[in-house]
Amino acid sequence: MLTLYAPQGTVAVAAHVALEEAGLPYTIHWISIIQGEQRSPEFLAINPKGRLPALLTEYGHLTETPAILDYIADISDKFMQSDPFQKARARELISFLAATVHVNHAHGPRAARWSDDPAAHVSMAAKVTETMADSCSVIEAVLPNAGWFLGSYCIADIHLYAVYRWFEGDGVAIANYPKLAAHFAAMKARPAVAKVAALHG
Amino acid sequence: MLTLYAPQGTVAVAAHVALEEAGLPYTIHWISIIQGEQRSPEFLAINPKGRLPALLTEYGHLTETPAILDYIADISDKFMQSDPFQKARARELISFLAATVHVNHAHGPRAARWSDDPAAHVSMAAKVTETMADSCSVIEAVLPNAGWFLGSYCIADIHLYAVYRWFEGDGVAIANYPKLAAHFAAMKARPAVAKVAALHG
Ligand SMILES: N[C@@H](CCC(=O)N[C@@H](CS)C(=O)NCC(=O)O)C(=O)O
Ligand SMILES: N[C@@H](CCC(=O)N[C@@H](CS)C(=O)NCC(=O)O)C(=O)O
Repeated sequence: MLTLYAPQGTVAVAAHVALEEAGLPYTIHWISIIQGEQRSPEFLAINPKGRLPALLTEYGHLTETPAILDYIADISDKFMQSDPFQKARARELISFLAATVHVNHAHGPRAARWSDDPAAHVSMAAKVTETMADSCSVIEAVLPNAGWFLGSYCIADIHLYAVYRWFEGDGVAIANYPKLAAHFAAMKARPAVAKVAALHG
Repeated sequence: MLTLYAPQGTVAVAAHVALEEAGLPYTIHWISIIQGEQRSPEFLAINPKGRLPALLTEYGHLTETPAILDYIADISDKFMQSDPFQKARARELISFLAATVHVNHAHGPRAARWSDDPAAHVSMAAKVTETMADSCSVIEAVLPNAGWFLGSYCIADIHLYAVYRWFEGDGVAIANYPKLAAHFAAMKARPAVAKVAALHG
């Protein structure tokens, strides 16, 4: 049995969708970020970084969305390409989402990670629409005109879905990116995605 | 034949070490960040994100250090664990290095990515020593007392080496983290690492 520690919304949606799609037995342990539960002694014992998601497996805990997604693909033998270059392309996009797009987004709500100056937080939040629009352009350029990112459904499609949910709130109109908009719509139409989305509000 | 587009220093050291260790045939195409060559039309045709490293393979280009390292491990069948949970632990650390530690470091030289205000850049640079020290604490907590991160040498050890090279310049004394310091010394003692380091200055 796998247990996913997750708040509602956030990048944890990706790991949740992957578990649901994979058909693996799992439970969700909800953690409230609004109540600061990610900094409770109980949760810090699981993930000393104080971040979500975290996945409890029979071997121990795992953190970091890219690692969790790859692990779910590995143990379910689903949602990952078999060709080495195609696998690398999936991981290239996932790594961009984690190290660039998620980071751009976090400069709104989490600017205090990188500066102690409240005026700097305001200027960082003011740039989020621009950096997230740049991120959309990069994604738009690599998506196909129709269908999944690499032809067959994979963990990069799932990670993209979790990230798409941030764009409108960050001031970026998804409709301006037709391939991205079509891919987001295709993700929302999947029963597993709709089931998970309903739990995340 | 593989071609790595790389500047001297930077995170590209990780991909360079991995290629050298794997014994794969490769050449280096040096790109000068100081001269802004990462924004030249020639390089943007390879990587529209304007970032390094990029790896040219017979199937096309790959970017993002985590994806490039996993690809080199995959095609060489070296430097990656076979057990799914151990593989995930390697990727968990690699993802942390790319999405948190590298990002913390970049708030010194590259603060303009996230704010247009010069005063904010100063406040972001002022926090780098603190966030990089926090990063060292996370790494110190997961490293073993001796030997490689997961027992046998893997791509996470290689990525760590590239990141270690930033700490002193960011104001963090590696000697304060004994496991990290021992791991860094063990990496520097590898012939392939010494050979690559000599090329990066
Ligand atoms: N690189 C990690 C980042 C995880 C992360 O930062 N999660 C956010 C939620 S989207 C979080 O835990 N925020 C709580 C906090 O910063 O206190 C991943 O991709 O899983
Ligand atoms: N997530 C990427 C980041 C690559 C990156 O930002 N590289 C830096 C060098 S360490 C770069 O290209 N900087 C040039 C610039 O920002 O113009 C990776 O891990 O490979």
